[in-house]
Amino acid sequence: MSGVLRVGVIGAGAMGASHVRTLSESVPAARVTAVYDRDVARAGEVAGAVGAVATDSAEALVASGEVDAVVVASPDFTHADLAVACIDAGKPVLCEKPLAVTAKDALRVVEAEVAGGRQLVQVGFMRRFDPGFLALRRHVADGTLGEVRLVHAVHRNATNSTSTDDATLVTGSMVHELDIVPWLLDDPLVGIRVESPVAEGFRDPQLATLWTRSGVMVTVDIFANAAYGYDVRCEVVGTRGTAALSPVAPVSLRAAGREGTALGQDFVAHFLEAYRVELSAWAEAAARGGVDGPSAWDGYLANVAAEAGVASLSTGSREVIDPGERPALYAG
Amino acid sequence: MSGVLRVGVIGAGAMGASHVRTLSESVPAARVTAVYDRDVARAGEVAGAVGAVATDSAEALVASGEVDAVVVASPDFTHADLAVACIDAGKPVLCEKPLAVTAKDALRVVEAEVAGGRQLVQVGFMRRFDPGFLALRRHVADGTLGEVRLVHAVHRNATNSTSTDDATLVTGSMVHELDIVPWLLDDPLVGIRVESPVAEGFRDPQLATLWTRSGVMVTVDIFANAAYGYDVRCEVVGTRGTAALSPVAPVSLRAAGREGTALGQDFVAHFLEAYRVELSAWAEAAARGGVDGPSAWDGYLANVAAEAGVASLSTGSREVIDPGERPALYAG
Amino acid sequence: MSGVLRVGVIGAGAMGASHVRTLSESVPAARVTAVYDRDVARAGEVAGAVGAVATDSAEALVASGEVDAVVVASPDFTHADLAVACIDAGKPVLCEKPLAVTAKDALRVVEAEVAGGRQLVQVGFMRRFDPGFLALRRHVADGTLGEVRLVHAVHRNATNSTSTDDATLVTGSMVHELDIVPWLLDDPLVGIRVESPVAEGFRDPQLATLWTRSGVMVTVDIFANAAYGYDVRCEVVGTRGTAALSPVAPVSLRAAGREGTALGQDFVAHFLEAYRVELSAWAEAAARGGVDGPSAWDGYLANVAAEAGVASLSTGSREVIDPGERPALYAG
Amino acid sequence: MSGVLRVGVIGAGAMGASHVRTLSESVPAARVTAVYDRDVARAGEVAGAVGAVATDSAEALVASGEVDAVVVASPDFTHADLAVACIDAGKPVLCEKPLAVTAKDALRVVEAEVAGGRQLVQVGFMRRFDPGFLALRRHVADGTLGEVRLVHAVHRNATNSTSTDDATLVTGSMVHELDIVPWLLDDPLVGIRVESPVAEGFRDPQLATLWTRSGVMVTVDIFANAAYGYDVRCEVVGTRGTAALSPVAPVSLRAAGREGTALGQDFVAHFLEAYRVELSAWAEAAARGGVDGPSAWDGYLANVAAEAGVASLSTGSREVIDPGERPALYAG
Repeated sequence: MSGVLRVGVIGAGAMGASHVRTLSESVPAARVTAVYDRDVARAGEVAGAVGAVATDSAEALVASGEVDAVVVASPDFTHADLAVACIDAGKPVLCEKPLAVTAKDALRVVEAEVAGGRQLVQVGFMRRFDPGFLALRRHVADGTLGEVRLVHAVHRNATNSTSTDDATLVTGSMVHELDIVPWLLDDPLVGIRVESPVAEGFRDPQLATLWTRSGVMVTVDIFANAAYGYDVRCEVVGTRGTAALSPVAPVSLRAAGREGTALGQDFVAHFLEAYRVELSAWAEAAARGGVDGPSAWDGYLANVAAEAGVASLSTGSREVIDPGERPALYAG
Repeated sequence: MSGVLRVGVIGAGAMGASHVRTLSESVPAARVTAVYDRDVARAGEVAGAVGAVATDSAEALVASGEVDAVVVASPDFTHADLAVACIDAGKPVLCEKPLAVTAKDALRVVEAEVAGGRQLVQVGFMRRFDPGFLALRRHVADGTLGEVRLVHAVHRNATNSTSTDDATLVTGSMVHELDIVPWLLDDPLVGIRVESPVAEGFRDPQLATLWTRSGVMVTVDIFANAAYGYDVRCEVVGTRGTAALSPVAPVSLRAAGREGTALGQDFVAHFLEAYRVELSAWAEAAARGGVDGPSAWDGYLANVAAEAGVASLSTGSREVIDPGERPALYAG
Repeated sequence: MSGVLRVGVIGAGAMGASHVRTLSESVPAARVTAVYDRDVARAGEVAGAVGAVATDSAEALVASGEVDAVVVASPDFTHADLAVACIDAGKPVLCEKPLAVTAKDALRVVEAEVAGGRQLVQVGFMRRFDPGFLALRRHVADGTLGEVRLVHAVHRNATNSTSTDDATLVTGSMVHELDIVPWLLDDPLVGIRVESPVAEGFRDPQLATLWTRSGVMVTVDIFANAAYGYDVRCEVVGTRGTAALSPVAPVSLRAAGREGTALGQDFVAHFLEAYRVELSAWAEAAARGGVDGPSAWDGYLANVAAEAGVASLSTGSREVIDPGERPALYAG
Repeated sequence: MSGVLRVGVIGAGAMGASHVRTLSESVPAARVTAVYDRDVARAGEVAGAVGAVATDSAEALVASGEVDAVVVASPDFTHADLAVACIDAGKPVLCEKPLAVTAKDALRVVEAEVAGGRQLVQVGFMRRFDPGFLALRRHVADGTLGEVRLVHAVHRNATNSTSTDDATLVTGSMVHELDIVPWLLDDPLVGIRVESPVAEGFRDPQLATLWTRSGVMVTVDIFANAAYGYDVRCEVVGTRGTAALSPVAPVSLRAAGREGTALGQDFVAHFLEAYRVELSAWAEAAARGGVDGPSAWDGYLANVAAEAGVASLSTGSREVIDPGERPALYAG
């Protein structure tokens, strides 16, 4: 394929519309040509703003001759089928996280991709493109911290409209940590336990403990309704030192007896730069027919870990994370 | 008793010598009159510097007519017997933490005190006098944070010469958190689980989870050989906001491409102000024949929790913390 | 003009090459079609990497039918002539700061633009697109700070290869503050005094005091060889509070007894996001034949202030900043 | 003199009462035996709380056989005469800053002391005992910063009831910087210029520039009615790096979309630890008949600098700071 990648975006909600805007304003390698959303008016509005057309269905968008590659930002339950449809059409796809609602469905995507013999699916774990997480990973990789023993992760929202029960808090929110921690450490997860200080109703916050293959223990504090703001933290503790994400706030204010900074209110704003770099990297890779980021296998791993986490919430025990054998397609 | 409290100090190691110095330089309500240490030369040196005398034995010090009250800063295994000796002598005693090596021994102190009918024992959990922990407790008490759900505590030493095996890491180091957390929340501990990412040899760091009666969950990260410096942190997470200890460093330096501050190297320096306020409050209370701080019962509670923690390290399970009924002497 | 803006870049040094890369990777509205540099090999390399051609001269680039708009990133002494050439050719130009070496030359650009009757020149004061400076400006504009009384600016480099004598430290480095302060406050500069603690040789650092029309006093600390790193700070002090840029560092490290963050080493890395937004805004405006950012008049104002500053270094007195009447073209 | 220093305190306002409390609660080497205040009831109350007596006059207090040494915390205009009275009585005195209202009066104290042949006067520049300023001074002295070029000091109050006009803002507030800067650098002040962004009425804030003998330039931002809180900062900039006071706040709060810390509201609370160490050091030195801190000569130097500063506010020019020859009594 020569020239600019023509991208179709499925889902024109907050996330999808943000991706359309970012692709149009900041990713020269791509051009949005088609948008689909169940809300036809919404799709037309988002498409119109960037000179794209709204299609009648997601299937039509995937099949369109004007679409070289697809971004999936529709509701979670649609992800796996759409990813498979893209694989069947031979088109690269950036699928928002999670890859699927169940590990079984995610495995279906993996199997379709393996059957096709080449990677077409990238999962939208945008944190892997965030400057902070990238710097943390470098500190781990270069030995600055010595041998890693512990990781402490915090992931809080002021409010959350999608993680609204015990299971979706794991599969929709904690799934970010289930992907980023093994990537940070280059060390897969083998166990998970999820508990909560709340005994009844929606058990929010949740406190998870993860174990990696090499023995590192990880705490994850997930709080979907933390009220005070959006807050993502991560500290990696090694035998020589520790490294942690720093709060990012461009300006500090002193007024009325207090000094401080504004906290972010949502993940889209917080990770805007990560999304931009993600989309840019993906567009260039997709133009060459491939991916440059978390694979379908990575998406499946996160689903497997999340399912074990949901099970743990019920059993109260540590559950094994066992994804089975990694297909050769994802080696290296 | 009129005038200045005459204090005998048992133990002239780093902690005891620091207490002698603080009492002499910063606590007008007290005067150190006697010092005992197994190392006779050391005792003489420390005593001489402040015009006190070195006694021949701990018993002689407790019995001395020149001693109104006692500070116990000798090795942990001597604490319980010395506390009981002070009770028997009717003299107020500030006993360094832990009150005893075992809960059974701590209970012996409690029972002796209950038999005597008045509180004479204060345990040296100095964090309760630290400006940071005091401010945290105010934020909890005044409702700023809403209802508390989680606490995250970190307690790391560069190196540690006394917490040198799995059990002493709990009974000697983590015991601080086992006291401070229920005090912060005014909510007793009912369960504990202690795990470690290290499978063999000295299992350092340890990661503990605590449960309070009202359901709050607490993570405690204890690392006796964290190499990089002394580091104590605590965050309380509620339904309206969170509060955390801030790092304390008077000066920030920018040099050689980095900006930053010096980390403390040990707990004595870090908590010097807390020790001063603790000794001052204790001396004034002791002059009136009483205590003003953590009681023998508090010391016993910490021992009970620590023992459950040590058990958990072996069983790998959550263990119950059950101290039995609180004697009326410690009501309110 | 329909479609993508075809941009010619004059100067392929660090700044020019960075602009070429940013335009290609992050600005869909623009495409680099031509590059010129006195170093022919360098020009060819930079052009080749993005599918552009290297031209034989700056004049040829400006005249080229493949070039709709121009970025000038060549040495400072060439800026004014190149800006005038672009005006003569009727092509929008983003000219790196300073607009000219002398106020007289900058005025020549202004006059050429006024003669032409429309704004074609934007000056590369990228700080106006930095999230921190933008947030500071909002705090001033929305009254959070009350009435502004003081501003404190710091601008330090580890080393500096272009601000190498008393005058270029003002015209090349401090010129950023001479532009950003009146923009932050929406209040023009009327006086300047520049002094130095260094009496002989290269008088680095310099300490400037600025006065705005409404009476605000501004301190500027410029240090081209501060050794420890790149450091840009700004605090605005009002009658109700103060706001200041926060240090930006994604990760904090604790190791070897210290906690801290890495300082940036140069302005290109520090302001990468500002450059991206600047180029993006300019490209969209240039495609419509206009500008969206600091004007030629703003560039001239900075030159006038810088010249008064250089004079002050000699006289040791406060010098008046008097740019004369603002042409109607720059009203509003 | 054997035993505890018997201290008389003149002035029982906020500062005097704080000193009485600190001496009683935290300085074993001293005991407050007498208190004088023009407000008889106030004196009685403060004296009574610590078992001291209220005297009928300041003269009676100085002369009292129950008073070994004196603390002067009465209004500024009384300082010089009381210091001289103490010298005449041969009693050590800790005199709150400023030593006098005018340099002439301060010189009178110096001359009285020189005539007596020994130092009895210590001036209450408590910052010299603050952990932050002490750490800054060490960084200067040990060469960490290279050669010092610049210092930036900030000194702001939310409101101020004593620095209420142009002159007292210099003599009452800025006087702290006029003492601390030469002490930090071990480099005397030789010039001062004071300006203000406010043209009429009370010219608050003031912006001062100081010059030291070795050429260092110093900016001082004094704002007595900064509204937002108490704020003292100091940065020392050298050829190898910079060091700055860090904000001190034991707890950080995240709530309602903001993260931050409480700012102090007044200097007494902010410098409580510095006052304690100051009083402790002074009491021990006074018991030996001497001083341990800023001398009468240091107090005079600050007055000379302040007077030059007040003059500069009128002339608008840099004024020379020329204290004349230092008497041999203050050598070294």
